[in-house]
Amino acid sequence: MPPTKTNLSDAAAGLPEHWSPRVLGDVSGHEVKVSKLLGEFVWHHHDDADEMFLVLRGELLLKFRDGDVTLSPGEMLIVPAGVDHLPVAEEEVVTLVFEKAGVDKLGDKAGSVPRFA
Amino acid sequence: MPPTKTNLSDAAAGLPEHWSPRVLGDVSGHEVKVSKLLGEFVWHHHDDADEMFLVLRGELLLKFRDGDVTLSPGEMLIVPAGVDHLPVAEEEVVTLVFEKAGVDKLGDKAGSVPRFA
Repeated sequence: MPPTKTNLSDAAAGLPEHWSPRVLGDVSGHEVKVSKLLGEFVWHHHDDADEMFLVLRGELLLKFRDGDVTLSPGEMLIVPAGVDHLPVAEEEVVTLVFEKAGVDKLGDKAGSVPRFA
Repeated sequence: MPPTKTNLSDAAAGLPEHWSPRVLGDVSGHEVKVSKLLGEFVWHHHDDADEMFLVLRGELLLKFRDGDVTLSPGEMLIVPAGVDHLPVAEEEVVTLVFEKAGVDKLGDKAGSVPRFA
């Protein structure tokens, strides 16, 4: 059998809750994930991992200490390792995330935010 | 300044030719690329790198030794390392590619196909 394809809309539709990414596959030790976002996350950074967001649906506001960026569908941004960021979704957003396998979504705040445990 | 976003349609529109991917950014040693495809590529594989395709526009036929898969916009597939594949675009396709930095697009056929040099 050839490799299986994934329809991103279908994968997003199957997500049970917000801020709980589903891993769609592994690319040589990096993970491709789809995530549904709603509301405000938590300021955090990832010490050792860059993180790429590619918005599929909705408008994702990414706050940084030195300015904000809004991503619309078809737009991507790479958050460099060590850079504080705060994702905010006023209305529901579906995003693809690409980063090294095993990165905690809360980065330096891992384990400290019970509602996102 | 916060990180710069990239609009994938704009990035694709700026591509000068088919089968010549443009690197949009680096995610901890993996590259995000956009590529315009037209026609038939070359059977090849990448010994040490998985390769992810996410189609943005058009229909991408991926032939494998044991079957074919067609990707429409919003569909992705990961070609595992070592697996022979042949991308075919009967009409123009725009695709995002994720893979380790430094992978030759022709894999085991690198340098042997002058028209894709």
